[in-house]
Amino acid sequence: MVAKKHITVAYQGEPGAYSTIAAQKFFTSKIQLIPNESFDLVFKLVEENYAEFAVVPIENSLAGSIHQNYDLLLKHKLFIVGELKLRIVHYLIANPGVRLANVTKIFSHPQALMQCQSTIASLGNRSIIPTYDTAGSVKRIKEEKIMDGAAIASDLAAEIYKMKILKNELQDSPENYTRFLLLSKKEEIKKNSDKTSIVFSIDNTPGALFRSIRVFALRNIDLYKIESRPLHGKPWEYFFYIDFAGDLSDVKCKQAISDLEALTSYLKILGSYQRDLTSI
Amino acid sequence: MVAKKHITVAYQGEPGAYSTIAAQKFFTSKIQLIPNESFDLVFKLVEENYAEFAVVPIENSLAGSIHQNYDLLLKHKLFIVGELKLRIVHYLIANPGVRLANVTKIFSHPQALMQCQSTIASLGNRSIIPTYDTAGSVKRIKEEKIMDGAAIASDLAAEIYKMKILKNELQDSPENYTRFLLLSKKEEIKKNSDKTSIVFSIDNTPGALFRSIRVFALRNIDLYKIESRPLHGKPWEYFFYIDFAGDLSDVKCKQAISDLEALTSYLKILGSYQRDLTSI
Repeated sequence: MVAKKHITVAYQGEPGAYSTIAAQKFFTSKIQLIPNESFDLVFKLVEENYAEFAVVPIENSLAGSIHQNYDLLLKHKLFIVGELKLRIVHYLIANPGVRLANVTKIFSHPQALMQCQSTIASLGNRSIIPTYDTAGSVKRIKEEKIMDGAAIASDLAAEIYKMKILKNELQDSPENYTRFLLLSKKEEIKKNSDKTSIVFSIDNTPGALFRSIRVFALRNIDLYKIESRPLHGKPWEYFFYIDFAGDLSDVKCKQAISDLEALTSYLKILGSYQRDLTSI
Repeated sequence: MVAKKHITVAYQGEPGAYSTIAAQKFFTSKIQLIPNESFDLVFKLVEENYAEFAVVPIENSLAGSIHQNYDLLLKHKLFIVGELKLRIVHYLIANPGVRLANVTKIFSHPQALMQCQSTIASLGNRSIIPTYDTAGSVKRIKEEKIMDGAAIASDLAAEIYKMKILKNELQDSPENYTRFLLLSKKEEIKKNSDKTSIVFSIDNTPGALFRSIRVFALRNIDLYKIESRPLHGKPWEYFFYIDFAGDLSDVKCKQAISDLEALTSYLKILGSYQRDLTSI
């Protein structure tokens, strides 16, 4: 059990991970961050009351959705209570004394490697080593005293592990944002909520997806995002995740959901929360 | 340049990769397989006439879409001329003499690791090392004589590199299929074509996605799949990939596409081809 001096927030990765930067921005008061190896553990920790909140990335503007977390939202009983878009700036980080010319191996999480593909290619022929965390890669090259490698991570990670920044702004586009979700075991619809997320599955019949989306279009409810994920054990059938405008205290939204329930074989409300309008 | 004795087919990975098994099934005659390091190179090779066809995975029934290849379909001028669903059976492969108890590290491609998550967890505390290819991991543990590690790959890879199979059927579900696409520089609509793929982007206005899907629903054209990908440089805007029933010689489909063109800011036909009905 974690001593509850502050609000407890679980995240995936090591200190200095981008999730920790997002977590600090969600709260005005001091928080206690709980690092975890996997996203699955992050969800479990909140579900079993070891942490009050979780902060997880759900989508990046260059690399796309983080599907594992879409799947975990379905598997675990947590609610989305907030979202935050964070501009991601990647740095190339090495042990003090290492120069760019010495670097033959680049370590980072596959998502970060994807966001820096062109920049990495322009650095010439270097081996790419995918790892399970950005900040964790910095920790690893420090602990293993790797002098011919560098890691891609946040400047915070460089600071925490007292490492050297070899190169700034590694991401292929300055428009590199990650959307993070704040998750809680308690459903909480704040007054300023203006966005709702749901997940549903439909029978594999012609026009079924069209009829599902129509319940929103008929009421002029705007859809922000639609995402499909395979239904495990039923190859080529899908779950649909939809984000739409409005919260569940709106009559219009309530009616849309009620109509949708009649059309779907499964429907789950993931939460209503305030939309982050950053960079739109 | 590649000597053209047979039909040339480019793929990502090393000999024994699942793409090579799929490639053999696409053709009745003998083919010459051209291994490549990256998917980007695979597309380029066909675009620049160094290979006649490419075979790439696009979707797995457990792990979901292979987004990189959706992005490459947009970037390169190739057409989809066929699809094939292959049942994927993963094997745990090691150097001769290695026993399961000796294995402390498991090497494979992140997609394969995702498809075997639960099985790997049940094997106890072993390090997971993500790599860029399944068959390439087998090659690596052979070449580097790694005696405390094993790779997840096809039985064909075990055979090619003369390695030992430690465990069969590693995938978490027997219903593990990967859908492969056959790509060509020449657009080719065969008589038996009954499925078409397109990609488009729409203005970020309320109801725009609904109006796009309506052009199909009004004509009773069934949608098989809808997939969204972020529009690079325009955060939180998306490209939509749609697979629908029918080919472009159908009047109904032609009219739907013509209506859709009026609604979209970008539209590209990826190809019409015969649908693989396996495992539906």
